[in-house]
Amino acid sequence: MIGVIATLTVAEGKNAEFEAIFTELAKQVRANEPGCHAYQLTRSRANPQVYKVLELYADEAALKHHGGTEYFKAAGPKMGPCMGGRPEIEYLDGV
Amino acid sequence: MIGVIATLTVAEGKNAEFEAIFTELAKQVRANEPGCHAYQLTRSRANPQVYKVLELYADEAALKHHGGTEYFKAAGPKMGPCMGGRPEIEYLDGV
Repeated sequence: MIGVIATLTVAEGKNAEFEAIFTELAKQVRANEPGCHAYQLTRSRANPQVYKVLELYADEAALKHHGGTEYFKAAGPKMGPCMGGRPEIEYLDGV
Repeated sequence: MIGVIATLTVAEGKNAEFEAIFTELAKQVRANEPGCHAYQLTRSRANPQVYKVLELYADEAALKHHGGTEYFKAAGPKMGPCMGGRPEIEYLDGV
């Protein structure tokens, strides 16, 4: 299992737009990626502009497949204008 | 949905013992908590003494139930001697 924590900082006033784009992406992931065991957008209680995506993949192949999907690649440019900082992506090894 | 990221720092030489205790706990959680959608121990690639538990609960009631189970309460004292620092628990709201 591979874990990913993606920390995304959204610009002020862009939360609703970001959440709509991400929710659509998450639907696609859940519908098309059996190797993805969790793909959950969450929002920080400490800072409402900070979101953390909790992700779990069966293995490296499932993670690689995710990154290569058309819908994932299409979501990046849509989310770009909503961002308030660089995303931080942490990869973790399942135990 | 409620997300939890539990960051646990394990003392040098205690990794195997910690992982064994936690693996047993995770088995119990998966077998007994339908409201827990993910309970995955992962290990940092940056620091091998740092583990992050990625957790997802259907709602606050499921999270509260988890914390009240006998097996969860019993795991704390067992893991205590393995710890190399205070656990950091971050709660996040699902979107």
